[in-house]
Amino acid sequence: MNHVKITGYGTALPKNTVTFDDQTRYRVVSGETQISLAVEACEAALKQGSWSIADIDCIVSASAVSVQPIPCTAALIHEQIARGTDIPAVDINTTCTSFVTALDTFSFLIEARRYTRVLIVSSEVGSLGLNPNQKESFELFSDGAAAIILERSENPEQGIICGMQRTWSEGAHQTEIRGGLTAYPPSNYKEETKEEYMFDMKGREILSLVIKKLPKMMADFYTESGLSAEMINKVVPHQASRAMPLLMKKIGFSEEQYVNSIKEYGNMVSASIPFILCKALAANEIKEKDVILFIGTAAGLTTNILAMRI
Amino acid sequence: MNHVKITGYGTALPKNTVTFDDQTRYRVVSGETQISLAVEACEAALKQGSWSIADIDCIVSASAVSVQPIPCTAALIHEQIARGTDIPAVDINTTCTSFVTALDTFSFLIEARRYTRVLIVSSEVGSLGLNPNQKESFELFSDGAAAIILERSENPEQGIICGMQRTWSEGAHQTEIRGGLTAYPPSNYKEETKEEYMFDMKGREILSLVIKKLPKMMADFYTESGLSAEMINKVVPHQASRAMPLLMKKIGFSEEQYVNSIKEYGNMVSASIPFILCKALAANEIKEKDVILFIGTAAGLTTNILAMRI
Repeated sequence: MNHVKITGYGTALPKNTVTFDDQTRYRVVSGETQISLAVEACEAALKQGSWSIADIDCIVSASAVSVQPIPCTAALIHEQIARGTDIPAVDINTTCTSFVTALDTFSFLIEARRYTRVLIVSSEVGSLGLNPNQKESFELFSDGAAAIILERSENPEQGIICGMQRTWSEGAHQTEIRGGLTAYPPSNYKEETKEEYMFDMKGREILSLVIKKLPKMMADFYTESGLSAEMINKVVPHQASRAMPLLMKKIGFSEEQYVNSIKEYGNMVSASIPFILCKALAANEIKEKDVILFIGTAAGLTTNILAMRI
Repeated sequence: MNHVKITGYGTALPKNTVTFDDQTRYRVVSGETQISLAVEACEAALKQGSWSIADIDCIVSASAVSVQPIPCTAALIHEQIARGTDIPAVDINTTCTSFVTALDTFSFLIEARRYTRVLIVSSEVGSLGLNPNQKESFELFSDGAAAIILERSENPEQGIICGMQRTWSEGAHQTEIRGGLTAYPPSNYKEETKEEYMFDMKGREILSLVIKKLPKMMADFYTESGLSAEMINKVVPHQASRAMPLLMKKIGFSEEQYVNSIKEYGNMVSASIPFILCKALAANEIKEKDVILFIGTAAGLTTNILAMRI
């Protein structure tokens, strides 16, 4: 067990909303950026925990898409909230589950006392890359950000019970933005190629691969962690799509056990999981001693499962 | 100390070279890609260590620039070398020092027995983003890749003695590729904006900031690690620029102590440090029991220093 606790959390949403039938989506307008959302979430987390930036000794950006090819996103966030300090800034990325990977990975560094108090932030403006011709994804995504402050706990019962990640690259091209970097450089952008630079999601294929793989991974996770479904107080799933409830049922969770905010917020890419976590902490729906299961499927195709006693 | 050892290493270079005066640079031509170089380096590392992919339980891509905005680069490498497995794939990024950050970070997960044997790969095709109007950087960069296999050591003396990272974001815009992602989307690409999508390096400003910050960081590193300059057998510095020897002198290393391959290979971005390491291991210039100091300055501005007993 890695003994960690959350001692600060905050979120940020764009001001503008759009609706598709009964579904609300948040979308940035001029002046709002991936960085401005990240900064707002970080500042909210610092304020909620009554911390100043000097109390933080590592800034981790855990987003799917970066702000610039160079430098890393954490350095650009650092510029806004930590300029003049020498706090290390690192990006970690497993697409939609980047936050869970950051929580998992950096809990080892906190457990080993390399870092004392780590700020983890996920921020996404997926709406900028949507393809209006792909109705499913065009109507699914919201922009937003969420940040937490993670530090060592002296309580022997508190922290990360088990983390697990699996990548099945037969699904590597089921969720993509192909263009913008070295595979399809921006210099090739033209009217005929513009869809290469937009989000491309093959929902049915993803679902079919996940249904094939997830039940075994869930069973292996229970074996490795010593946990069972009844021991979990709340499941915080990535809000991947409207098919999420189907997947939850498939791995044995009832509607009461998991958070479903697809209708209210849609899929915020890497920010979905921490956003829901922060909202639930603020509403006291997740509280100390609860065992939380984070679970999410990401482009890659990657799945992360992580259990934490809050 | 995190008890780890390198049990496989490999490199890859493009076939094509260009020369600027006496400086040789490697540049991809049609058919060679960031992925093909990464795959070649990974396969060489597996072969050198007599491993098969089934022996690896985590694939870490530690490159500055990614292949696609989505999914992460490690998943695309996984597709070529590990398709059909469920080995987790993760990207970690601190620009030019991404390899050192990966080594540092994942050594904690190996020490804690989360992973047994991790493949770390850095691969770059920086030449695709160079600006012909910026002579300094245009003549500096090479493309290339390097991979290592890192696993637990049972030797109590072997492994990572100390790792340190600092980020000084007053230099966040001294090394950039601004365009291609959310800050400057590919859709804005046109003749008048094309330089926003190219590499932009302010060499003099970087040098001035590093000279101001590095000596204190080096002194703090010695204090924290208990090491001194005489205890280090070989310094493996990032081949940032022709000013690197000046920086080495500034922090007290003689020409015999560090590797300088600027003339032969230039700056390979994140691949520079592991490339030199692999070459030195192959030539037996770095051998068991040696204490190696990895040191590099990256866009961000980030500096990593890490000492490892091989």
